[in-house]
Amino acid sequence: MNISNPGTGQVTGVASVTERMRSILDLVGANVVQAEDLRRVPDANVQALRDIGYLRGMVPRAYGGSEESPVDLYRAARLLASICPSTAWATQLLMGHAHVVAAFSKQAQDEVWGNGPDSYAASSVAPAGKFTPAEGGFHLTGRYQFSSGCDHAHWVILGGMRPNAETGASEHCLALVPRAEVQIVDTWFTAGLKGTGSKDIVIDGVFVPEHRIETMGALFMGQSRGIGLHDGELYRIPFSAIFGASFSVVALGAADGMVRAYSERLRGRVSALTGLKTIDSAPSLMRLAESHQDLRAATALIEQDWHDFLRLARGELAPTPDVLVGWRTTQSYVVKIAVQATDRLYNASGGSAGYLSNPAQRFWRDVHMAAGHYYVDYDIAARVLGRHLMGLPPEPGVI
Amino acid sequence: MNISNPGTGQVTGVASVTERMRSILDLVGANVVQAEDLRRVPDANVQALRDIGYLRGMVPRAYGGSEESPVDLYRAARLLASICPSTAWATQLLMGHAHVVAAFSKQAQDEVWGNGPDSYAASSVAPAGKFTPAEGGFHLTGRYQFSSGCDHAHWVILGGMRPNAETGASEHCLALVPRAEVQIVDTWFTAGLKGTGSKDIVIDGVFVPEHRIETMGALFMGQSRGIGLHDGELYRIPFSAIFGASFSVVALGAADGMVRAYSERLRGRVSALTGLKTIDSAPSLMRLAESHQDLRAATALIEQDWHDFLRLARGELAPTPDVLVGWRTTQSYVVKIAVQATDRLYNASGGSAGYLSNPAQRFWRDVHMAAGHYYVDYDIAARVLGRHLMGLPPEPGVI
Amino acid sequence: MNISNPGTGQVTGVASVTERMRSILDLVGANVVQAEDLRRVPDANVQALRDIGYLRGMVPRAYGGSEESPVDLYRAARLLASICPSTAWATQLLMGHAHVVAAFSKQAQDEVWGNGPDSYAASSVAPAGKFTPAEGGFHLTGRYQFSSGCDHAHWVILGGMRPNAETGASEHCLALVPRAEVQIVDTWFTAGLKGTGSKDIVIDGVFVPEHRIETMGALFMGQSRGIGLHDGELYRIPFSAIFGASFSVVALGAADGMVRAYSERLRGRVSALTGLKTIDSAPSLMRLAESHQDLRAATALIEQDWHDFLRLARGELAPTPDVLVGWRTTQSYVVKIAVQATDRLYNASGGSAGYLSNPAQRFWRDVHMAAGHYYVDYDIAARVLGRHLMGLPPEPGVI
Amino acid sequence: MNISNPGTGQVTGVASVTERMRSILDLVGANVVQAEDLRRVPDANVQALRDIGYLRGMVPRAYGGSEESPVDLYRAARLLASICPSTAWATQLLMGHAHVVAAFSKQAQDEVWGNGPDSYAASSVAPAGKFTPAEGGFHLTGRYQFSSGCDHAHWVILGGMRPNAETGASEHCLALVPRAEVQIVDTWFTAGLKGTGSKDIVIDGVFVPEHRIETMGALFMGQSRGIGLHDGELYRIPFSAIFGASFSVVALGAADGMVRAYSERLRGRVSALTGLKTIDSAPSLMRLAESHQDLRAATALIEQDWHDFLRLARGELAPTPDVLVGWRTTQSYVVKIAVQATDRLYNASGGSAGYLSNPAQRFWRDVHMAAGHYYVDYDIAARVLGRHLMGLPPEPGVI
Repeated sequence: MNISNPGTGQVTGVASVTERMRSILDLVGANVVQAEDLRRVPDANVQALRDIGYLRGMVPRAYGGSEESPVDLYRAARLLASICPSTAWATQLLMGHAHVVAAFSKQAQDEVWGNGPDSYAASSVAPAGKFTPAEGGFHLTGRYQFSSGCDHAHWVILGGMRPNAETGASEHCLALVPRAEVQIVDTWFTAGLKGTGSKDIVIDGVFVPEHRIETMGALFMGQSRGIGLHDGELYRIPFSAIFGASFSVVALGAADGMVRAYSERLRGRVSALTGLKTIDSAPSLMRLAESHQDLRAATALIEQDWHDFLRLARGELAPTPDVLVGWRTTQSYVVKIAVQATDRLYNASGGSAGYLSNPAQRFWRDVHMAAGHYYVDYDIAARVLGRHLMGLPPEPGVI
Repeated sequence: MNISNPGTGQVTGVASVTERMRSILDLVGANVVQAEDLRRVPDANVQALRDIGYLRGMVPRAYGGSEESPVDLYRAARLLASICPSTAWATQLLMGHAHVVAAFSKQAQDEVWGNGPDSYAASSVAPAGKFTPAEGGFHLTGRYQFSSGCDHAHWVILGGMRPNAETGASEHCLALVPRAEVQIVDTWFTAGLKGTGSKDIVIDGVFVPEHRIETMGALFMGQSRGIGLHDGELYRIPFSAIFGASFSVVALGAADGMVRAYSERLRGRVSALTGLKTIDSAPSLMRLAESHQDLRAATALIEQDWHDFLRLARGELAPTPDVLVGWRTTQSYVVKIAVQATDRLYNASGGSAGYLSNPAQRFWRDVHMAAGHYYVDYDIAARVLGRHLMGLPPEPGVI
Repeated sequence: MNISNPGTGQVTGVASVTERMRSILDLVGANVVQAEDLRRVPDANVQALRDIGYLRGMVPRAYGGSEESPVDLYRAARLLASICPSTAWATQLLMGHAHVVAAFSKQAQDEVWGNGPDSYAASSVAPAGKFTPAEGGFHLTGRYQFSSGCDHAHWVILGGMRPNAETGASEHCLALVPRAEVQIVDTWFTAGLKGTGSKDIVIDGVFVPEHRIETMGALFMGQSRGIGLHDGELYRIPFSAIFGASFSVVALGAADGMVRAYSERLRGRVSALTGLKTIDSAPSLMRLAESHQDLRAATALIEQDWHDFLRLARGELAPTPDVLVGWRTTQSYVVKIAVQATDRLYNASGGSAGYLSNPAQRFWRDVHMAAGHYYVDYDIAARVLGRHLMGLPPEPGVI
Repeated sequence: MNISNPGTGQVTGVASVTERMRSILDLVGANVVQAEDLRRVPDANVQALRDIGYLRGMVPRAYGGSEESPVDLYRAARLLASICPSTAWATQLLMGHAHVVAAFSKQAQDEVWGNGPDSYAASSVAPAGKFTPAEGGFHLTGRYQFSSGCDHAHWVILGGMRPNAETGASEHCLALVPRAEVQIVDTWFTAGLKGTGSKDIVIDGVFVPEHRIETMGALFMGQSRGIGLHDGELYRIPFSAIFGASFSVVALGAADGMVRAYSERLRGRVSALTGLKTIDSAPSLMRLAESHQDLRAATALIEQDWHDFLRLARGELAPTPDVLVGWRTTQSYVVKIAVQATDRLYNASGGSAGYLSNPAQRFWRDVHMAAGHYYVDYDIAARVLGRHLMGLPPEPGVI
């Protein structure tokens, strides 16, 4: 039984990106410590992910992209995360942001991909910036946190509040800005996901033309300027679905890595204390089984959603509140399960699992860092879902 | 969102038994207290389940049965359990034992269903009886526990040890015996699943002809005399798969019932202490959401197995050890989740949930009683799966 | 090691009531099923508890009572609960209400204990009744739930709202009423603590003289008419401390009973499935150890509070908010631990633990029923304590 | 209420070392990051701990030590750990090893403390070394892990197997060796407790005279050469009690630190998502309360043991198996609680808690590293206690 990645192989069909991903895992594995030391993804990893076509997986075919199945892309990302969660986190975002860019105006897309599909965007979407009106666009000023993968990005997608031209009301917008026009501030000193390079971005009065700005409202509602430009079903999947899916995948992959590390240790281990092989210790085996089953359950649940993304794109599923709230909250639930599955095993791994040379501690640190992202915060998800189940209106300010 | 039964409706297709089941839920609901008082399933419930064709759902078409999809039958049973877990438990077994009978010899099947498909078998399969050789068969003597639904059965399937004719070694066999030839001893005084009538059976030297005996080995290996008699795909699903599936379904249904009871209470409740409506209490809502998600995950996982039963029957899936160990242990895992989902809500329901007039306490008692069945014992499942994952041989005596 | 009652014997000193309690445990044990069938405490149990002096343990010496140490009384009650939680619950209240009566006017106390100390009060203190003014007192009308032990009480203490004579504002008061003047309505059909007889009380316009009414405010503040009448240190312990202590003791005792039942089963048990003795199954032993340690921790914590009751009575400890909030919330915490310790063992006890003849299921049902009482609701306690720890004011209406 | 250290102040009496410890917490707090960067305790911390007399707290008065109360010393260590768990861990061992040295021969003690009480020993006691006989003693060769604080030690206590002079059987012994005679190998690159400097020790054929060797058996049985040399009650506390107590104290202190960090964050925090102050979010407050109560329970339990150390030393408590098994396993239980209390809060602290500048992540990493030490492994403790509770003999090789 494939212990370490119960997610892959559950469904028939050719998993091409996933298979190509498998071919570079040795390289990524060799760079794991380097990623933590650099505190960003090693260039060689990015190059390899480019070479196998992963990074252009959501770029429109019109621009040389490959419009892969999200199911395949997410499984590939999870597999990558089972070796190096940091690399998976940052590059999953670089890959997935193509879906956002494809919702911007054609002019913006031409600027991003005019020279080929291997042009990537990092982001920081909280409304930490301020737009001030200018001729043909706006000046944007702000400071942002957590811009994963920014060192490898050609563009950045930045959030900010903009006065609505008609009503004057402040609107949350996203702007597409060349990376060369912003400053990266290296603040990424963390306990987990060290290799993601999720640094701060500072932008100081940079002009952003109108065609590179979209409101969050339009993006969420599928009414932004890029909608309809590409006819692949990938672009009929809502922004919110794709945008939210990436975080949980990394947490699941890190948990897969922990399961693999634990079972390898179990295989080799003689208890320092008792001198007996622990491989047939009932509690050790039961923990392994329980975490394995947790991950199988989480996989069954989240992959159902991924397939539903496609069903919706094909018109087989209506985007009802039930469906959308389900997607929004299931990802947080599976992250919670991934943390639980990881903690169960790490907490039973003994002191030597704490050496930095032991991969167990990295998966443990990384899955917790992934779970700290507000978009997969379980408290928020449970409140959102609980209110929905009881027919209550959403709490103000909670998305 | 369908709070109380996340299992149904996840998959497309006509769920006919499930729909027919829905039509009798009011009747079953009205008899819930009666079932506990009688300590067996009320006759009216059995009649209704017969009338909608549920009880003949696994009887071969050759005998007037309907060979329904197991997915449909299990969903129907889960729905029934969300109203009356006791009725669901006992009748699920009466229904499912048709699959075992269909693995016996044609002569045995003729005896059981010669007068029509509405002839049902209860069971107690542990090898608590002793076969002694006789002309053309064996005499069987023994005392058995936990024979759910026996009051409504026409036949009983009883386990025992029989000397192998050639080797003399003792073999675990099952015998098919008319209910009129055994004695039912009413020992069913329990804390949960009170209405299942899972009484003791005493058999005292009754003659069982050879054609009504099969070894467990042959049944498990698909080599018993009935294999190949019926060409429906239902009968190409292994005995062990069908036999084991019924317990988890009842636990999930009871948990569904608890979710429904909890959300109904939440809707109406004013805290005795604070005078405030608790419907928008964050912890109350979060618990509801978490149990709802637990059940969705368990559903996604177990329904995957049910569909795999059919894939195997169609030759699309090989019965590898991975698959079989997975089926054996997943059911225990989902029962554990069902208990967890139920406990979370019951434990937050306050003192009035303990009145017998409140359905919450019944679902809570019943889900724990269901989880106590050795076939869904999570400790055993986790040990079995843990050993399998590590490539260790099974522990002796653990099935 | 004393598995089943880690609470007793941790502290030096003569535990006289506890020792006397031990002498009647066989009797109580023999009546356990009878208590559930009667749905109230058997008369023989009440008689035995009277004979060993337990029931007059908090009656003032001036009236022939014995003013025992609360530490001793609570340990005795816990020991009793480890055999019959229902008897312990109801009689603990009958015993402890003497502390409330001793806070009423001398005239009221004379009426209650004028003929001797073995006159007991049941209660239902929520403000479910309504006082209407009358000459020299009030008429009281209302219907009350959960009046444990009322069948054995000579008096009942009933809550209600009364207009303040000066301000006209409605005040929560307690009235002391002869049991003969109220009607007991038998509504006690429950899943747990069946033997407590916690029935409804109906009172219809009964006259209550002024000297048998106290406001909750005065009782909580130690300003009621009885304060100072008796110089035993027992009566310098606040009403709220004594009143709240009884529920947790029963939950702990029920958990003790579960630990005992589990270890007895472990000692004798051969796994039905594997044929091996389970006594040396590591997971079974680990669960026992963990629940044992849970109860030791809960005991250490709650007994610290009981000793602090006495320290406060002796002037060695000030009744600061920290102390009072601690007392209020610690009891809920230990009940949560008791439930956890019980569930861990019951959930691993298999199907036969569910027979009514097996004490395990009773301890499990009873500890959950005890935990359902609003005064030990952990959600409320955690909110109260959390706010206190952060320096926030209490939530309105939460006590 | 003292949120961050529920352990101190529960018991009356002058806590002098604890008070002195409080005076250096600012210094230690300022060095926290330095400790992690150096991967050993900063010299200034050691100097400060020497200056307040902490490090000589268990040195005999005969050699200028102060023979402090272990209760006081452990509380002081816990307080220290609430600021810098690494410093507390390493220096607690340097301090506590004086108790071991005081069990060696007078000649050995003269060598260690002849020039004053501020001579400290690190250790690595697993039998990783090999003694070969020599004139007047043995040559010792071996490599050891996890020698916390070795950079600051003047001596090291090393384990090894030695042939018994009479029987020839191999015995686990401890040798006292000048630090200058061993080599420290810097292997301390870990995920937690980074500042403890728990490096490897290599010893290569160093001569150890007979008077600096004791068998573990003699130490455990109180029969080593130093027993009786000092009449302070500290030295009548068994070796195993003192030796085992230090690890749990650090875990509790780290959990205290997490509680403090969480409540400080709660006080200041506005949810990035909702814009609301989270201080009055019920789930946030409930988590704080629950972890606070967990630590109070753990404190009550472990301090009971510490007081029992003294009771035993005074002859008020017999060293029965119940007592000794209780001490051995309670420490693991409280560490489990400390981890649980920490995880509950860290997991609800969001992504910014993962920045290295946020103390929360350090307490979380450190408590897990502390819990990984085999002497506080909960699985082992639960098995040991479970067997003891059932009257089974200990498992071979488990101590």
